[in-house]
Amino acid sequence: MTTQQLIQQIQQKKSFLCIGLDVDLNKIPKHLLEFDDPIFEFNKAIIDATHDLCVSYKPNTAFYEAYGLKGWQSLEKTINYINKNYPEIFTIADAKRGDIGNTSTMYAKAFLEDLNFDSVTVAPYMGKDSVEPFLAFENKHTILLALTSNEGAFDFQTNPEVSGFEGKELYKSVIETSKTWKNSNNLMYVVGATKAEYFTEIRKIVPYSFLLVPGVGAQGGSLQEVCKYGMNSNIGLLINSSRGIIYASSETDFAQKAREEALKLQQEMEKILKSN
Amino acid sequence: MTTQQLIQQIQQKKSFLCIGLDVDLNKIPKHLLEFDDPIFEFNKAIIDATHDLCVSYKPNTAFYEAYGLKGWQSLEKTINYINKNYPEIFTIADAKRGDIGNTSTMYAKAFLEDLNFDSVTVAPYMGKDSVEPFLAFENKHTILLALTSNEGAFDFQTNPEVSGFEGKELYKSVIETSKTWKNSNNLMYVVGATKAEYFTEIRKIVPYSFLLVPGVGAQGGSLQEVCKYGMNSNIGLLINSSRGIIYASSETDFAQKAREEALKLQQEMEKILKSN
Repeated sequence: MTTQQLIQQIQQKKSFLCIGLDVDLNKIPKHLLEFDDPIFEFNKAIIDATHDLCVSYKPNTAFYEAYGLKGWQSLEKTINYINKNYPEIFTIADAKRGDIGNTSTMYAKAFLEDLNFDSVTVAPYMGKDSVEPFLAFENKHTILLALTSNEGAFDFQTNPEVSGFEGKELYKSVIETSKTWKNSNNLMYVVGATKAEYFTEIRKIVPYSFLLVPGVGAQGGSLQEVCKYGMNSNIGLLINSSRGIIYASSETDFAQKAREEALKLQQEMEKILKSN
Repeated sequence: MTTQQLIQQIQQKKSFLCIGLDVDLNKIPKHLLEFDDPIFEFNKAIIDATHDLCVSYKPNTAFYEAYGLKGWQSLEKTINYINKNYPEIFTIADAKRGDIGNTSTMYAKAFLEDLNFDSVTVAPYMGKDSVEPFLAFENKHTILLALTSNEGAFDFQTNPEVSGFEGKELYKSVIETSKTWKNSNNLMYVVGATKAEYFTEIRKIVPYSFLLVPGVGAQGGSLQEVCKYGMNSNIGLLINSSRGIIYASSETDFAQKAREEALKLQQEMEKILKSN
């Protein structure tokens, strides 16, 4: 999918919502456990109930790997279901991969070609040759971890003790350096919503890039704040919500309740889009 | 496996060799492709031929994920085969994972509990709460990326522009900070062999920790140099070789040739151990 197609979808749906499909068998409605593949049944119901309110789905691969072979099968079925039935959706494999060149190529191929996701999240620690193999895929996107929404983000990403010249924090160095890599136009960035004050700084470095923003809702970030400082003329934001939507109910009405939560966010987003 | 058991194994086998099982269907002998699971057949033959010369096997998970479900099946069969037949071997899932706390817990469970690896490699960028869930497993080990063997290591890990107080490079901050984390005694570190001059610096920070050293052989590092600067009184090193051993031949004699290459390294290691 091209960035232009993503922007068009956002304008049509009046939404820049991404729904995180982080499926935990302990949290899904009990009646689904009778199915042969409860994870896929859960995802299918959530997707069917919310696809017109969001522009993106983001399965975190850890939740699937945790169930071994069966989990990978559920992931495959989920991405295939989305690609077949809702091809307009921007799909994100939240895998946070990154390795030496030839190994990153294997990961890139697995997620962007074989599973046919539109994008994959990648960790920056190993630098240029660990990320460029992901960037080589045309009309696919690499979402680089820049500023994450967890407490540990302060350990290195924003820690003044590991800041360089003129007090430049690591997350800024990561974003700046990544702009020099080959096919860097295929880059997006993960920027946690819990630190809205950082969006101004990041927009100085990458005014035009899309930012994937976790941490709205369960992790405490404010949608209004993020949009105020992070939005650009092409919107440039994908706001992720996982638990707040998919676990809105643990009863048989879970898909309907998920829709209601997604609708609340979509309506808030529509208001923000109108007022800009 | 406890660190003490690993040290005992090193002393018994007179080897601190780790063999990387990075299996690529394009590189293995053609006759294996007739088997139902060529990757497992290849691994089984390599393991049977080398298990007395090495103390560790390290499958890089990317190579297995690249083959989807079948790849995961090969990985499961490989780790089960090692655990059943050679329980003294220290197994490493080279997965380079790392995510927010509850998600890292999923990864840790998948690799350390379900697949029952002795250790897993983890990326440090997301900090403390992304690593501690791995450290929580008793007698399991978390091998943190510190200084990798690829060119991109210079982008952030050793880059003076992202060095902090008194010019401290990022890789040093990562190692120092990690020592303050809960159960940090379960930490080991990835330190690339292409930069032997850094071992002295690292040993000032973690004199007693085990270091997993990729990059000897194909990537150009020298075993002698690494041992000179990196070895401690408990050896404290696991030297990885992948391609140089497992692809020594692409004919039916591949396992025998792999043994010969492993033997060369083991004998070099035995000499080094004697002279210390």
